Amino acid sequence: MRYSERLAERIETVGSRLCVGLDPRPGVGGTGEASGFLKRVIEETAEHAAAFKPNAAYFEAMGSKGMGLLEDVLEWIPADVPIILDAKRSDIGETQRYYALAAFGSGLVDAVTLNPFLGYDTLEPFLDWEGRGLYLLAVTSNPGSADFQRQRLADGREVFELVAALGERARDERRNADVGYVVGLTNAAEVLEKIPDAPLLVPGLGAQGGAMEALEAGGKRTAPVVVNVSRGILYAEDERSFGERAADWKRRIG
Amino acid sequence: MRYSERLAERIETVGSRLCVGLDPRPGVGGTGEASGFLKRVIEETAEHAAAFKPNAAYFEAMGSKGMGLLEDVLEWIPADVPIILDAKRSDIGETQRYYALAAFGSGLVDAVTLNPFLGYDTLEPFLDWEGRGLYLLAVTSNPGSADFQRQRLADGREVFELVAALGERARDERRNADVGYVVGLTNAAEVLEKIPDAPLLVPGLGAQGGAMEALEAGGKRTAPVVVNVSRGILYAEDERSFGERAADWKRRIG
Repeated sequence: MRYSERLAERIETVGSRLCVGLDPRPGVGGTGEASGFLKRVIEETAEHAAAFKPNAAYFEAMGSKGMGLLEDVLEWIPADVPIILDAKRSDIGETQRYYALAAFGSGLVDAVTLNPFLGYDTLEPFLDWEGRGLYLLAVTSNPGSADFQRQRLADGREVFELVAALGERARDERRNADVGYVVGLTNAAEVLEKIPDAPLLVPGLGAQGGAMEALEAGGKRTAPVVVNVSRGILYAEDERSFGERAADWKRRIG
Repeated sequence: MRYSERLAERIETVGSRLCVGLDPRPGVGGTGEASGFLKRVIEETAEHAAAFKPNAAYFEAMGSKGMGLLEDVLEWIPADVPIILDAKRSDIGETQRYYALAAFGSGLVDAVTLNPFLGYDTLEPFLDWEGRGLYLLAVTSNPGSADFQRQRLADGREVFELVAALGERARDERRNADVGYVVGLTNAAEVLEKIPDAPLLVPGLGAQGGAMEALEAGGKRTAPVVVNVSRGILYAEDERSFGERAADWKRRIG
């Protein structure tokens, strides 16, 4: 079964496009404290989650023990909830093959985020992995997205359209892995019409009013979309449980 | 002391721009075998090395134990040899701050490679770290470098010139960290004249005839340049020791 089919099924089952981001900020308690924290988040939010998205940065910041914790986290997540490892790796050739092994070798990770700046060679080693998904950084919502992604090319396109073309190439080659995109929903309408109908990972919804409406207005998209919420569930300053927060975000996202 | 000064001093002392790449391919022996292998490489080549460059991919592919091995490797490298952690990380904001902590928190890593595709926001959290260096992916030598880096912009520049501009911005802001570039030496002459006089990390020299000549012809560069060799020292198919291979590369690179 292909990644996009499996994810679409999960979205259907759970009735939500909510992706729960797992960003354990290393605190004074170290990995021990982070361990109990994440276990509780997973237990309480899994029923509302179309997917979980651990972000490698927070685990790496805790050193090799943090990476051990990441291995535990992958085991704790119920098998029917897809896992998107947010790692944004970006090497090529032999080296990138080892990044693919690091991501997919355990058999527990369903998809990864990749940074495509070094070109198709960055995707290549990941494309042979059957049933897996890749999300290429295409358009982000940070100010720095103007530095490259929104730059105008000599042929009239914007740079992020080159990312779209890489994904199309993989699809034309009928590779084992599905290629999707990371798309921030600032200026969603004009961007979405240039992004192929492929799996989308939408980060950082919190501050972006109207984003969901733009996504709906984009229409005609059949590939699965997930919307990530990390802080709003893990670090909201209120008295609600992780499960209550996730249920609330599930309603807002649909 | 700034990173570029410290690196320039080391190049002067050792009389070479050789950067020894540490890419332990996970074999049947696992981390135990890789550990002995890397310890020997470091002991035998340190006297010839202007810098060491462990590549995170190979350690990550061995899981959390591999990351523990990377922590050991950083301890084994003599304190007077700068360490460039080749990680090509590329997140933003809070998350990128944790990648900076992961890289520099131990106090043992002198510089890192970064992928600048998400813009200046990717550099920002690393720029406050005193005495450290960043190498931004600018022009690589793989076929995929045509997909983004060598694309022509509407204003006539190529995309890699935007990377150069990010480094210049950091320099103008007089930040704590030094910003350099990863530059492959295919088409070296036309590329080098558009790359600022900042630290350069030149990867994968092996197959590129004439690269060193191009670097010399570029002239007028005062910032330190290191040239990385990984396979040619770790996996050359000959009977020489790691030290003999490193000494030979040192002569060829100068």
